[in-house]
Amino acid sequence: MKLLHTADWHIGKELGEYSLLEEQWHAFHQIVKIAVDEKVDGIIIAGDLYDRAIAPTSAVNALESMLRELNLDKNFPIYAVSGNHDGATRLGAGHEWREQTKLFLNTSLAGAFTPIETDEAQIFLLPFLDPLEARTYYQIPEEQAANYSTIEQVMAKIVPDLVAQFIDNKQHLLVTHFNVTGSGNDDYQFTSETNSRVGGLKGVPAALFNDFDYVALGHIHLKQASPNPKMQYAGSPVKFNTKEAQSEKGCFIVNINEDGVTTDWKPIVTGKDLIVLKGSYDELIQPEFYEQYERNGKNWFSITIDGIGAREARATLSNIYGDVVEINYNLPKLTDNTKTKFAIQAKGQAEEDVVGEFYREVTDDELSTKQVKIVEQTLTELRKAEEN
Amino acid sequence: MKLLHTADWHIGKELGEYSLLEEQWHAFHQIVKIAVDEKVDGIIIAGDLYDRAIAPTSAVNALESMLRELNLDKNFPIYAVSGNHDGATRLGAGHEWREQTKLFLNTSLAGAFTPIETDEAQIFLLPFLDPLEARTYYQIPEEQAANYSTIEQVMAKIVPDLVAQFIDNKQHLLVTHFNVTGSGNDDYQFTSETNSRVGGLKGVPAALFNDFDYVALGHIHLKQASPNPKMQYAGSPVKFNTKEAQSEKGCFIVNINEDGVTTDWKPIVTGKDLIVLKGSYDELIQPEFYEQYERNGKNWFSITIDGIGAREARATLSNIYGDVVEINYNLPKLTDNTKTKFAIQAKGQAEEDVVGEFYREVTDDELSTKQVKIVEQTLTELRKAEEN
Repeated sequence: MKLLHTADWHIGKELGEYSLLEEQWHAFHQIVKIAVDEKVDGIIIAGDLYDRAIAPTSAVNALESMLRELNLDKNFPIYAVSGNHDGATRLGAGHEWREQTKLFLNTSLAGAFTPIETDEAQIFLLPFLDPLEARTYYQIPEEQAANYSTIEQVMAKIVPDLVAQFIDNKQHLLVTHFNVTGSGNDDYQFTSETNSRVGGLKGVPAALFNDFDYVALGHIHLKQASPNPKMQYAGSPVKFNTKEAQSEKGCFIVNINEDGVTTDWKPIVTGKDLIVLKGSYDELIQPEFYEQYERNGKNWFSITIDGIGAREARATLSNIYGDVVEINYNLPKLTDNTKTKFAIQAKGQAEEDVVGEFYREVTDDELSTKQVKIVEQTLTELRKAEEN
Repeated sequence: MKLLHTADWHIGKELGEYSLLEEQWHAFHQIVKIAVDEKVDGIIIAGDLYDRAIAPTSAVNALESMLRELNLDKNFPIYAVSGNHDGATRLGAGHEWREQTKLFLNTSLAGAFTPIETDEAQIFLLPFLDPLEARTYYQIPEEQAANYSTIEQVMAKIVPDLVAQFIDNKQHLLVTHFNVTGSGNDDYQFTSETNSRVGGLKGVPAALFNDFDYVALGHIHLKQASPNPKMQYAGSPVKFNTKEAQSEKGCFIVNINEDGVTTDWKPIVTGKDLIVLKGSYDELIQPEFYEQYERNGKNWFSITIDGIGAREARATLSNIYGDVVEINYNLPKLTDNTKTKFAIQAKGQAEEDVVGEFYREVTDDELSTKQVKIVEQTLTELRKAEEN
């Protein structure tokens, strides 16, 4: 038995102000091709199908088309769970009807204890959840709530209840969506865009999942964050931010037979790539510099300007490069002297003047009339907001 | 062939600050019982399944349970369309999987032209839509848009395309969700809570639907608004406002055979009824008056006080009656003299004083210190809101 393992599609996500939908379709078509070429027996999607709990209707239409193509047109069984970005209730609506064609999409803890059985495997679908949801499911009394307040604590209760369902002569797979920690992958703990309160450093210790033959993870977007070869993040099929710009995207083929589980990595190539640039403004606008990149729709650019740009930097750079998803400034570090000077000056001085002098100090230039107006307007809005 | 025709469930709706969910479940259980007792061959739900495009998750859970019970547990085919309150894309998500067990839920114009066929009938599912959606579907060029700017105009284009699909030896049913006008039902045109721009007086002339053997309508909440016996509103199964308080709720049984279509009305009794009261405050708080009603959770009350109430009218009435969904005041009509007096006085006078004098004029009493504070606070907030 062969499964394709992907995760973190984040349909509906935007990069800067640009929709990623076209790029997500580009990756999806490659996933379909890999699944067909490899003749897989099913597709694992380990959470974060959508980017938001209430996805825009364009995202709903896109995901529905993708599920239709995989499951109804190409007849691939699907084994999916909701992630922390998904709205479990909305994504799960209608799941009983989807199961009729083996599209298994579990979004509730209650549904995790009944694995899907194939000839070779039991596949457990454990969605992302927070400790409260687990306490509610287990009817933990209020006075014991403190003992089930972290995801590690509740997972230590949940996992044995999953393992209790194990049948001996099958491989045991878990599809889930958490931050799994403690196997030398800590360098990558910050690469997910998750809410760090629930899924950040306070993750699930990898050892808790040791009884499974393979854990198909979602949540962290780089496969390098995988705790070990038996517990892997497939990563997102599309690059979502500059931290992911240098990484190779792809999915896993999971080979399951009576001897155990092995995996192969299958790369997914970008349609539009995300290129991260850094340089002085003068350098960035030189043809010799920018002509080395395919621009104007071929790539996305994240640009960091060393020092100060020009007044129309954004417009000029967008004109040269096309889809500029972000512009950052790498401003000179202030000396301690400057900091002290401003701290002293700022006392009792109008905030408008402090901003103006700071600008002069850093740029050797004066704020333009338009800039002064923007500063004044911003400060007025800030004061108003503080009042309310 | 027998179908049950219901509509306008508005799951997720609130009455005042009270959830209607319990009452909606109460009505739902009766619908199930009627369907079982009558041995119907399917259930028509003619739009507005939800109250809002983005329904709260409690509403999603409720509707999913209801659809599951009807279609998966009791095996009733369902013929449903989206109404103006539904979000077509979200409600329609996954509909291809639902169809596998004959839960037909059409939310797009494109889906309206392929009727569901049974031995006796063709059932066309035409969801609520606005003219723009029809122009997009028909690819009407911009310069002709003015000719397809009303729902009547686009419906005159859509209906012939439905009729073109008719098979001779079957009855032709239409399930849809619009304001159908022009058959002596104009008195009831305002009983729907619709957006009057799209579904108000500018409705669909009943004559457009004359080719159908039965039109199962949703949108208006009272069956009395039905244009004629062949085009009927089932109405909402639950009372949603005081205008509906006196009406009988229910659903239709639609009998279909080769001779044509006939219908029978089946009442649905309220769990908690909505009782509309009107009287002076002194009268409303008399035991002889209020003890004639079952109170404190047995009914909802909409109360209109003739004249002025007491300072703690809301608290006192809620205490006596229980679930008071609204309190209105039937204040004495101002004489023209009084109006003129205030119009003159108001010029140049502090607004706080105008309110105080108005109160004195109407009640022969002074504002209390607390009331003065509320007036001042309200006026301050209004001024702030005007500034922003």
